Amino acid sequence: MKGKTKTGLNFSSGIVEMVHGSGGRAMSQLVDELFISAFDNPYLSQKNDQASFDLPAGRVVMATDSHVVSPLFFPGGDIGSLAIHGTVNDICMSGAKPYFLSAGFILEEGYPLKSLKRIVDSMALAAGEAGVTIVTGDTKVVERGNGDGVFISTTGVGVIPTGLDIAGSNVKPGDKIILSGSIGDHGVAVMSQRENLTFETTLLSDSQSLNDLVDVMVTAVPEIKCMRDPTRGGLGTTLNEIAQQSGVGIQFDEMQIPISAQVASACEFLGLDPLYIANEGKLVAFCAPEHSDQLLAVMRAHPKGWEASIIGEAVVDDHRFVQMKTAFGGSRVVDWLSGEQLPRIC
Amino acid sequence: MKGKTKTGLNFSSGIVEMVHGSGGRAMSQLVDELFISAFDNPYLSQKNDQASFDLPAGRVVMATDSHVVSPLFFPGGDIGSLAIHGTVNDICMSGAKPYFLSAGFILEEGYPLKSLKRIVDSMALAAGEAGVTIVTGDTKVVERGNGDGVFISTTGVGVIPTGLDIAGSNVKPGDKIILSGSIGDHGVAVMSQRENLTFETTLLSDSQSLNDLVDVMVTAVPEIKCMRDPTRGGLGTTLNEIAQQSGVGIQFDEMQIPISAQVASACEFLGLDPLYIANEGKLVAFCAPEHSDQLLAVMRAHPKGWEASIIGEAVVDDHRFVQMKTAFGGSRVVDWLSGEQLPRIC
Repeated sequence: MKGKTKTGLNFSSGIVEMVHGSGGRAMSQLVDELFISAFDNPYLSQKNDQASFDLPAGRVVMATDSHVVSPLFFPGGDIGSLAIHGTVNDICMSGAKPYFLSAGFILEEGYPLKSLKRIVDSMALAAGEAGVTIVTGDTKVVERGNGDGVFISTTGVGVIPTGLDIAGSNVKPGDKIILSGSIGDHGVAVMSQRENLTFETTLLSDSQSLNDLVDVMVTAVPEIKCMRDPTRGGLGTTLNEIAQQSGVGIQFDEMQIPISAQVASACEFLGLDPLYIANEGKLVAFCAPEHSDQLLAVMRAHPKGWEASIIGEAVVDDHRFVQMKTAFGGSRVVDWLSGEQLPRIC
Repeated sequence: MKGKTKTGLNFSSGIVEMVHGSGGRAMSQLVDELFISAFDNPYLSQKNDQASFDLPAGRVVMATDSHVVSPLFFPGGDIGSLAIHGTVNDICMSGAKPYFLSAGFILEEGYPLKSLKRIVDSMALAAGEAGVTIVTGDTKVVERGNGDGVFISTTGVGVIPTGLDIAGSNVKPGDKIILSGSIGDHGVAVMSQRENLTFETTLLSDSQSLNDLVDVMVTAVPEIKCMRDPTRGGLGTTLNEIAQQSGVGIQFDEMQIPISAQVASACEFLGLDPLYIANEGKLVAFCAPEHSDQLLAVMRAHPKGWEASIIGEAVVDDHRFVQMKTAFGGSRVVDWLSGEQLPRIC
């Protein structure tokens, strides 16, 4: 058949070659046999340079993330599933329902097609679980030594249901802060695989899409003020961002922060602060005190929020300080992360 | 002020550091002083992890491109303006009006902030010229040797005006093919800067946004069947893609293809075929024969289409061959590009 090579891609021992990024026949084959095959939907199959679709009425939300996690595979996930979760979560933290994603791949010459297929299949699975469709994409190839295996940029669009107003600037003093679960799992799981750091752990990354959890939250309490997923920079940085945006102080209680024994001991061993370690499947939500019990209840009833707890509240503070009541009864200022704890964690 | 470092970024001798991708204070500073400052709009200034906006009624279009062009600066453009043009053009080839863009940056540790600022300013200028707004973004940093300066992934959303149906599968035998201008300029301009190839030329890349040209085209002839910008793989590959999608053959006339003397001589010198060289500011349009004169007239009246010409037509051909009548009166099959002519051209 014209326009195809006669033999299929070699997914057992083939590698990414410069010609796969040329725009010609080899790229067309990669798109057909890898991406369209895995993501399987009528938008991609049309093979236009763009996708078109209808969206429900409402305010449209757009979010993007470029993923450079190293290593590409880690306990509990890989760059493929992470690239879906990261963007789905950025979309749904606005209360929006995510619908459509684009995916841009920057591949390094020589990367095994077998591993690339594993990543792409993982993306397809994660997209299916989150109920989103990968409708358009792009593939580029760079020479050996000018990349690092695979980088994936995803962008998503979603729509905010009428009546929601969820943003970082909405928090008022007195609002309660609910954390959906344990912190530090993603960062420690990825770090456990680094060449120079390998340590024994059965810990898995928490990488997951949160749109189903958000769905029950905004249905029960449409008055939620703000939600955010504490990814790079961790919970400590996220709370500082929100304090800054809303012009409030934040006080929270260390004893209320769920943390696994494995994360706690890895952090102690490596001298890291779990408050600054990345999460990829957790969120913090701010709501008025009269809604906090109800919101906590629906979160705890959901499998992705069973460990949820009210960790503190927003307070009047012109300095916008984030402060933590420590386990020993003292108080500590939790500043922005100023150095680099863990490079390339997402 | 809390949440900021006290001194500004050093745009004269500073470099990208790993900490600029950490999610903490340094990243926040980079976002504030570089991206928000250059792209200057109320969506970005809100500093949420997503942007929300209203779109006019109509079918929504989404397109994405990851840009890895090398070198990052070339005659007539740079990776920043190219990242806007590429995605704006993918959006508007569907007839859609582009509105909002996201931008994801993958920066290599050590890259000069001065050059990065030049790229970002160029993006801002190109976005302003095209009338699109960069509403959300992401920044990652990889270690020296794991990237190549700057990669930029852009994704755009737009809306198709009611009544248009423009797609690669719509072409029928008899439809005329109009090319908007000369071919090969972008590829040859970039190539002229490659370390191992440097040659003398005053040629500029044709990199430009085509949404204003498309606007006059679809207003005059809403019945346009298909439009596409012949980027990677060049005009030859684009015509093969459309022949394949629509199930037609294509015949065109070499004498009708505008090409500059500089591109022609560079191609002869280097043994390259201009039909496969990338363009970043040209389009081909297919329309019924009764509309072709009118469409050609409005294109020629526009500064981005003054060299437009009818280059050929779609024909009945079960083999979906693309054939060119040569300048010497013969005929040649123009196959898909099967090798790699010019890596990292966009």
